[in-house]
Amino acid sequence: MTPFDGRTKGLPAGLGPTTRDEIVRAGWRVFAEDLPLPVALLKDSSLRHNAAWMKAFLRMTGAAIAPHGKTSMSPELYARQIGDGAWGITVATVQQLRVCREHGLSRVLLANQLVGRQAIGYVLDELARDPSFEFCCLVDSVAGVDMLARAARSRAGRPLDVLLECGAMGARTGCRTLDDALALARRVAASGPWLRLAGVEGFEGAIHGTDDADTEARIVAFVAFMDEVARRCSAERLFAAETILLSAGGSAYFDLVTRLPRELDGRRTQVVIRSGCYLTHDSDTYAKAATRMRQRTPALGALGEGLRNALEVWSYVQSLPEPGLAILTMGKRDVSYDLHLPFARFVVRPGVDRAPRRLPDTCVITALNDQHAFLSTGGSELAVGDMIGCTISHPCTTFDKWRFMPIVDDDYRVVDAITTYF
Amino acid sequence: MTPFDGRTKGLPAGLGPTTRDEIVRAGWRVFAEDLPLPVALLKDSSLRHNAAWMKAFLRMTGAAIAPHGKTSMSPELYARQIGDGAWGITVATVQQLRVCREHGLSRVLLANQLVGRQAIGYVLDELARDPSFEFCCLVDSVAGVDMLARAARSRAGRPLDVLLECGAMGARTGCRTLDDALALARRVAASGPWLRLAGVEGFEGAIHGTDDADTEARIVAFVAFMDEVARRCSAERLFAAETILLSAGGSAYFDLVTRLPRELDGRRTQVVIRSGCYLTHDSDTYAKAATRMRQRTPALGALGEGLRNALEVWSYVQSLPEPGLAILTMGKRDVSYDLHLPFARFVVRPGVDRAPRRLPDTCVITALNDQHAFLSTGGSELAVGDMIGCTISHPCTTFDKWRFMPIVDDDYRVVDAITTYF
Repeated sequence: MTPFDGRTKGLPAGLGPTTRDEIVRAGWRVFAEDLPLPVALLKDSSLRHNAAWMKAFLRMTGAAIAPHGKTSMSPELYARQIGDGAWGITVATVQQLRVCREHGLSRVLLANQLVGRQAIGYVLDELARDPSFEFCCLVDSVAGVDMLARAARSRAGRPLDVLLECGAMGARTGCRTLDDALALARRVAASGPWLRLAGVEGFEGAIHGTDDADTEARIVAFVAFMDEVARRCSAERLFAAETILLSAGGSAYFDLVTRLPRELDGRRTQVVIRSGCYLTHDSDTYAKAATRMRQRTPALGALGEGLRNALEVWSYVQSLPEPGLAILTMGKRDVSYDLHLPFARFVVRPGVDRAPRRLPDTCVITALNDQHAFLSTGGSELAVGDMIGCTISHPCTTFDKWRFMPIVDDDYRVVDAITTYF
Repeated sequence: MTPFDGRTKGLPAGLGPTTRDEIVRAGWRVFAEDLPLPVALLKDSSLRHNAAWMKAFLRMTGAAIAPHGKTSMSPELYARQIGDGAWGITVATVQQLRVCREHGLSRVLLANQLVGRQAIGYVLDELARDPSFEFCCLVDSVAGVDMLARAARSRAGRPLDVLLECGAMGARTGCRTLDDALALARRVAASGPWLRLAGVEGFEGAIHGTDDADTEARIVAFVAFMDEVARRCSAERLFAAETILLSAGGSAYFDLVTRLPRELDGRRTQVVIRSGCYLTHDSDTYAKAATRMRQRTPALGALGEGLRNALEVWSYVQSLPEPGLAILTMGKRDVSYDLHLPFARFVVRPGVDRAPRRLPDTCVITALNDQHAFLSTGGSELAVGDMIGCTISHPCTTFDKWRFMPIVDDDYRVVDAITTYF
């Protein structure tokens, strides 16, 4: 871990070069103002709860997970996930792959097309450099397959494993029809030994119906389409490896994709889901998705309490310029705003409160500037210098605003810390 | 400058620790695919044009500038701005102040309230540590003034200079009325020698009227309010320093705030504008603001061509999954989406095109995911592997997605590079 100093947001500005160990040993307490605000923090008990929940889910379904690393881009969280038994880590870009490689990860799924001279070159170099490196990426076009095959042939190294990407009309990447998918699978098979067809992949999270039930019906149909593509590829003997990889599943519908088959023509499959958000969860988009998931998949009730929100962003009231309006010391630089504005949930008055007090639901953040939040106080008695705790919607776009985040215990004492590499 | 490696987005993934000098010497060319995409780049000729334009504007108006450093958070751009004669650098937070201090800046305006134990402590420590450090922050409440005064008294060091912040009803921070402003100014004066009233500040960019003309009328009235507050403070001898600081002006209305008075009761004022976006500009929000500025202030015509867009984000076409749809290798992690989605402007086919071709206006980005963009091709003939150049709206929220950005010449050869500290 690169040492931090006070230039890193979330750490005391006067701090010289400091390691994670030193940070943990310092015993900082958030409500003693040992850290400057804004700060985005992770709650250790929620992380541990969510990790245990996902382990139980995987045990129940027999699926594996390669958590999407793009969510946190944090090697420390990847290490927790691998320690929990994750099959590998998923990435979206080759820069993200490099972060994984630098931090010792040996199995990485690039859930994206691999394009561009630099990106392809790095992957092939890394395959050549390290025989233990396991990698696969997606293909969804003949042009893409041919580019990869040309590059791989020119290096004449280990074969490049690819997953055939299935897509749905109106969704994102991926082959839309069985004919297109099979034609592409044959193209991959014909590009051996430089390319190998390792399995079939899809991303159901880009499928949107007219309502929840319609979306879910489309996703079930999409999973059936993936199943059919995989069966046909298997029947044509297009898969190269012993075990066939079948991967889908973002953070909202991973229950539905575990229906993918566990064997094809007597060959074992490995079903890999890719939820990136399960570990931190949130209190809006994914909280609602989890509620819906428990409704449509009652078997999840056996796992006990569902996922908990683990991520909060704290800031100060810096101004109370008009009745009913507070301005906070955080903004678009600090917190997600793409799916919903943050939710003001807690207040702590330094030197007075020893624990957070719940804010009423009438206390609402109405706008964010780059570095300011507008809080409609809804009758709450706030003072300049009060600390406001917010929950968020969509962890990915809060993580990417921080290089450093403390992990705190239930008393908001710093017990660990993570780095991120966005 | 901290050395980079391939974990840094925008650099080749295989790169080991590399300095800025080495990057510049490498002579990378974007269209030869020497850099991975996505990449956010700055055009050197536009940066130089914009720097010259702002120098001419300041010469014409007699105002000074402390560019808002939050826009780029880049010490290399700060150095260019100071080299161009900037009076200082503006920041929004104490973390941003620390970045400025680490990189040798001696005069910093915190255009925000200073709250919280850590933030106040760092500023007072830094004032004590370096007698040449010039600093001021804003105050808009008695509670805030009293907190600062208590902290400053307990250290018994140099006085802390503050600017009285004026605000407008319905806008952001700042005193709304003359009475409140004067009461607060007296409170500051009574907090001597620990606090000193250095001037008056306002941010007109948070004032929104029913249309352009109404907004501008409100801003003119707000500038007159600041003027009145400053005159009354001067008449009451509440200002401590010889020269009275008067500061306002974001990137959209800085022409209007140069009307602030150049003297008060025979004492000289220093009018400081704070535009953060003039150097890179954009092709939407600030481009439109600049057009409007030239309409309402015809004298700007004497400065010749207006500001140019200097910032582009390039990505690959990774998939053409349906007729009329291209998926690009960039997303919310790479480009602004808060005020407008990016604008697909240019295409380069590697190995074929030597210069960008203009895309038709029918080629439109319709959505962003975390790591993907949806491009409606509007009849353009695109291929997987094509490079798409986008311009953006709101530089602040593109800068904050990059730690490294190359500066390129008009042939897109890398001639310099910047770091950022978000």
